[in-house]
Amino acid sequence: MDKTIKKINDFREERDWRQFHNPKDLSISISLEAAELLENFQWKTSEEGLSADMENVKEELADILIYSLMLASDLDLDVHEIIEEKLQKNALKYPIASSKGSNKKYTDL
Amino acid sequence: MDKTIKKINDFREERDWRQFHNPKDLSISISLEAAELLENFQWKTSEEGLSADMENVKEELADILIYSLMLASDLDLDVHEIIEEKLQKNALKYPIASSKGSNKKYTDL
Amino acid sequence: MDKTIKKINDFREERDWRQFHNPKDLSISISLEAAELLENFQWKTSEEGLSADMENVKEELADILIYSLMLASDLDLDVHEIIEEKLQKNALKYPIASSKGSNKKYTDL
Amino acid sequence: MDKTIKKINDFREERDWRQFHNPKDLSISISLEAAELLENFQWKTSEEGLSADMENVKEELADILIYSLMLASDLDLDVHEIIEEKLQKNALKYPIASSKGSNKKYTDL
Repeated sequence: MDKTIKKINDFREERDWRQFHNPKDLSISISLEAAELLENFQWKTSEEGLSADMENVKEELADILIYSLMLASDLDLDVHEIIEEKLQKNALKYPIASSKGSNKKYTDL
Repeated sequence: MDKTIKKINDFREERDWRQFHNPKDLSISISLEAAELLENFQWKTSEEGLSADMENVKEELADILIYSLMLASDLDLDVHEIIEEKLQKNALKYPIASSKGSNKKYTDL
Repeated sequence: MDKTIKKINDFREERDWRQFHNPKDLSISISLEAAELLENFQWKTSEEGLSADMENVKEELADILIYSLMLASDLDLDVHEIIEEKLQKNALKYPIASSKGSNKKYTDL
Repeated sequence: MDKTIKKINDFREERDWRQFHNPKDLSISISLEAAELLENFQWKTSEEGLSADMENVKEELADILIYSLMLASDLDLDVHEIIEEKLQKNALKYPIASSKGSNKKYTDL
């Protein structure tokens, strides 16, 4: 992962773009890329979505990851660590016994 | 990364949640988590955003990464690979010479 | 509509909130409220969505409208006018003959 | 407003598009249009946003309103009524005395 993050950081440093990259504006960009990803599935059922334009899906997903890794890097966060911590927290909110096979929010379990 | 993806997949398999995880609905969830991240910066300037609730920022960023890695895993995509491919594509859209220090879209360069 | 817009503007003036209401930050708020609306349908099929919590749907939809009307008011836009103009533009992009019964984008028609 | 809503409904009926318009998929579309609106302000400060492409802002705002009015119409909601109800609810969450001039959430007041 370190190698990938270095490539991402090199990309923005070569373009002198760090000046635009604060947490608020990076979060806006993650949100915009997430919408571009979702646009592939607009007016499609979940099943029809399985045959969406996967080339575009791949690119929008990459954009989401790129901005997310920039934000993690700027905040000195280790992505593996924050993912594992969040999974542990989610495990408490969604115990296997009560959440298995259910699409309910933890507040409704 | 493989280890982290395995933990994420174990989490959803133990809860029998794969039935809900198609590309459309995962994309909706990425979008919702991106909004929860952005909510930390609502009504704040970019500078005020630097002192947002970073504990919450960390958790929402983790959620975005978790759903993004689920989608990548479901589509058999290697995240390092798709990120590098996208950086190369972006490098063509944003040559250093014309984009350095600029916040313009490539269509306006 | 004028009466409703006046009530919305009175609400923010009484609270001295206009200082926070520029087009960028109002757009962020519309986006966040749109996500809160969409959250009612997370992990639900379109059919299951028909029995979502309509009390919450109503409130989030109202929030989207309130921020949208604030932005229109700040930009001196007449909402009826911009809606009609956009419908006319959409009618050119989506002629009845080619778009009837189709969920395709105009670029794919 | 009734006249505008009728035009919007005529537009989709002529194209036989009501079959795609359930609350979940309309909410996705509101979210996507909100992102297209926000894209006008990407990488801009709130002040720079004042000189964004207002022609595009106007169109995206119209799209948000169109989908929002479709959803309101489908759910038999009167937009003036739901806006006023929400303003009254917000007034309780944000009493003038404690919220005047403040950008804090009601949970932090």
